[in-house]
Amino acid sequence: MKFFPAQTYIDRRAKLKSDVNSGLILLMGNNEAPINYPDNHFRFRQDSSFLYFFGLNQFGLNAIIDTESGEEIIFGNEFSVEDIVWVGQQETIAAKAAQVGISDVRPSSKIASILSAAKSKGRDVHFLPPYRFDNKLQLMEWLNLGANEITPSVSTKLVNAVINLRSYKSAEEITEMTHAVNISREMHINAMRTIAAGKKEYEVVSEIYRTAKANNCYLAYPAILSINGQTLHNHGHYNTMTGNRLVLNDSGAENEMCYSGDITRTAPVSGKFSDKQKEIYNIVLEMEESSIAALKAGIMNRDLHIDANKLMLRRLKELGLVSGNTDELAEQGMGGLFMPHGLGHQIGMDVHDMEDLGETLVGYGEGLTRSTQLGLKSLRLAKKLEAGFVITVEPGLYFIPELIEQWKADKMFAEHINYDKLKDYYDFGGIRIEDDILITENGHQILGDKIPKTIEEVENAMAN
Amino acid sequence: MKFFPAQTYIDRRAKLKSDVNSGLILLMGNNEAPINYPDNHFRFRQDSSFLYFFGLNQFGLNAIIDTESGEEIIFGNEFSVEDIVWVGQQETIAAKAAQVGISDVRPSSKIASILSAAKSKGRDVHFLPPYRFDNKLQLMEWLNLGANEITPSVSTKLVNAVINLRSYKSAEEITEMTHAVNISREMHINAMRTIAAGKKEYEVVSEIYRTAKANNCYLAYPAILSINGQTLHNHGHYNTMTGNRLVLNDSGAENEMCYSGDITRTAPVSGKFSDKQKEIYNIVLEMEESSIAALKAGIMNRDLHIDANKLMLRRLKELGLVSGNTDELAEQGMGGLFMPHGLGHQIGMDVHDMEDLGETLVGYGEGLTRSTQLGLKSLRLAKKLEAGFVITVEPGLYFIPELIEQWKADKMFAEHINYDKLKDYYDFGGIRIEDDILITENGHQILGDKIPKTIEEVENAMAN
Repeated sequence: MKFFPAQTYIDRRAKLKSDVNSGLILLMGNNEAPINYPDNHFRFRQDSSFLYFFGLNQFGLNAIIDTESGEEIIFGNEFSVEDIVWVGQQETIAAKAAQVGISDVRPSSKIASILSAAKSKGRDVHFLPPYRFDNKLQLMEWLNLGANEITPSVSTKLVNAVINLRSYKSAEEITEMTHAVNISREMHINAMRTIAAGKKEYEVVSEIYRTAKANNCYLAYPAILSINGQTLHNHGHYNTMTGNRLVLNDSGAENEMCYSGDITRTAPVSGKFSDKQKEIYNIVLEMEESSIAALKAGIMNRDLHIDANKLMLRRLKELGLVSGNTDELAEQGMGGLFMPHGLGHQIGMDVHDMEDLGETLVGYGEGLTRSTQLGLKSLRLAKKLEAGFVITVEPGLYFIPELIEQWKADKMFAEHINYDKLKDYYDFGGIRIEDDILITENGHQILGDKIPKTIEEVENAMAN
Repeated sequence: MKFFPAQTYIDRRAKLKSDVNSGLILLMGNNEAPINYPDNHFRFRQDSSFLYFFGLNQFGLNAIIDTESGEEIIFGNEFSVEDIVWVGQQETIAAKAAQVGISDVRPSSKIASILSAAKSKGRDVHFLPPYRFDNKLQLMEWLNLGANEITPSVSTKLVNAVINLRSYKSAEEITEMTHAVNISREMHINAMRTIAAGKKEYEVVSEIYRTAKANNCYLAYPAILSINGQTLHNHGHYNTMTGNRLVLNDSGAENEMCYSGDITRTAPVSGKFSDKQKEIYNIVLEMEESSIAALKAGIMNRDLHIDANKLMLRRLKELGLVSGNTDELAEQGMGGLFMPHGLGHQIGMDVHDMEDLGETLVGYGEGLTRSTQLGLKSLRLAKKLEAGFVITVEPGLYFIPELIEQWKADKMFAEHINYDKLKDYYDFGGIRIEDDILITENGHQILGDKIPKTIEEVENAMAN
């Protein structure tokens, strides 16, 4: 088990304690998650907030911080000799806890009475929204709450305090994230080398799996890899790749410390972009690079999203696919037809960082309301960027026949969208390009080594 | 989505209906399972019993069979056009259901009233033990049961009816299982080729992942791959492989139809077994081959387990590690020190087939009680083998220093175990060899093509 220095965790907990400032804080670790029967498990993934404050990447743990007495307790059961036959010699929880500055470790059975005692004294028990159903059931039992009483009982104070800490990445976190991006880079380069007409998409995915695991990583999220890049969350990989298509690959590594990379590249199956593919590709590339160039503390990410849409529509106008005042049309949401998703989101331990705490709480903030426009409404991060945020920038341009047909039928922007000419793009697919970027006071820093991105770079990577 | 012919599912449901014979049968499909926030999911795995009767490998579905009216209904929500932007053009649930002989598909919201109407009329609602916590919560809501009322309300009648059907594999299932074993075979051969001193265990695991995915498969269970083979369920892969160790690799593929392989091989890191390794390896090989040779309908698997232990102790006596009447000592459980697990289990869609329905119900049956001896108590399948069962045979021989020290301190079999000489094996590790075998009326059939197994075959595979 790898840890940051104990002081890192001690400092984080001290800040949390002073931010929340009353009652008990309950942070639940994750348990093993059953696949098809109780003892067959998916790979273990610890809860990110538990990891952030307690660093123990192990199932079956929970923790309480008493904001008033200052007590910090980890609850979990040590292995017996019989367990050791099955799982091998293990360092004790107590020994691991000492490495994150915790000296008080108690058996799991001891937590219930502490929580009920606090409740009976009228003390607050702050907890985060449970996204694992076993933890939800456990909360219902411990706090004597019905299934529908959990969500209203979540502590907004704790949620905001956690967001306020986890949003700002420290230097040691940036080192981990850079590592995760560099493994993601290797995954992408190896994927580019594997793509070939006649192969199945899953053969490329297999190379992504191999590369992640060969570097002691998992995938941070199910790989999106498809010749149907226009399908935004395409997790099936059954298609045979054909020479006229593009392969969109959105995949990233999660390393041993559970930090994630989130990278997208799009490459031609044939190894060479056609002229038509180049035209569209270079629009997306320009959107990505100009968005990144604008990044610094103080910028509203919502503005960047709209600016990217303006640029896209301006370029599509040059191709004769749209017409009119493209800047105004972008404000009105016309870009949503071509990019029906947001420009990006925060990333950290979670690929959509802290999404379990509430996407709008994390990405919007006071005074900002969510748009209802297609595209903009899917923007996860709208608020002002701050130094220490790490975000994705991931513009895309897609030709989704079903969506285009629906807009055409609904006469959406009928004067400004050349629906006839769009028919030539029904078999085009889609393109997305994505990098992970640290926001700094005066600018930004793209994490990791350069990943092939220009047409020339992608073609060269595929040829090697 | 791949299906068996519709008639297969129709016949299975007809048998189930007639076996259960009263009330409603509720079969719950699985949902997406969250990793670290609600929208980031582990790979989807459908419930095996749902698949067996309804064949639909898709999340968000449930089914009811009315044993009296004969109605068979699938509940699920069709995708909207907006969903299609995200997940691509999909065949409707109704179209898929037609392929498994179901014509009645209703929205998910319609199931609650059918269940509560049945309950209010005093009709039985038969359900299986839920192992996913979201399904447990759903059952609590639908049937108005508390968390502790679910287990006592499980339908033993339904459980037994399902076991009675799923235990006997049809020819079309054997075809799928043979495929899964053959992919597992490729995984093992590629792993053998990848093993080398100085590499990390996870580098070999990465090749297993690649091979599975390149064949459109997942791992049926987390790979056990370790130079510490004596650790039975070792899911960490952080060790550097060193030339004097053996690598135990227990891994299997799950194919598109969700049938599993479960194969173990043990190979020397150096590519060549030492004389000491050969001695122990050949004991395990003899245990495996003689156990398989004895397989046919009517044999008690419990007897095979004990016979394998007798053989093991006889051979260990020849090595001077134990002494005395080894057959009697095997009956008394002395083998548990060297093989603290069972000889095997049923396999099918689940690698431990139907374990969610109750390991003892599946593997024991009337009149058989579970032993408390180390080793034998872990035997999952004790009962009489029947034609159509597919089982694993997986003897092992391990030197577990912690366990040996404990037995020594407890003076277990002190006269018959040469604890001094066992010290020479404290750095040995462990060996297991496992194949998947169909039981037939007069014999058996090892599934799949031959996987390198003798010392010569393993060494040759590693050299290629």
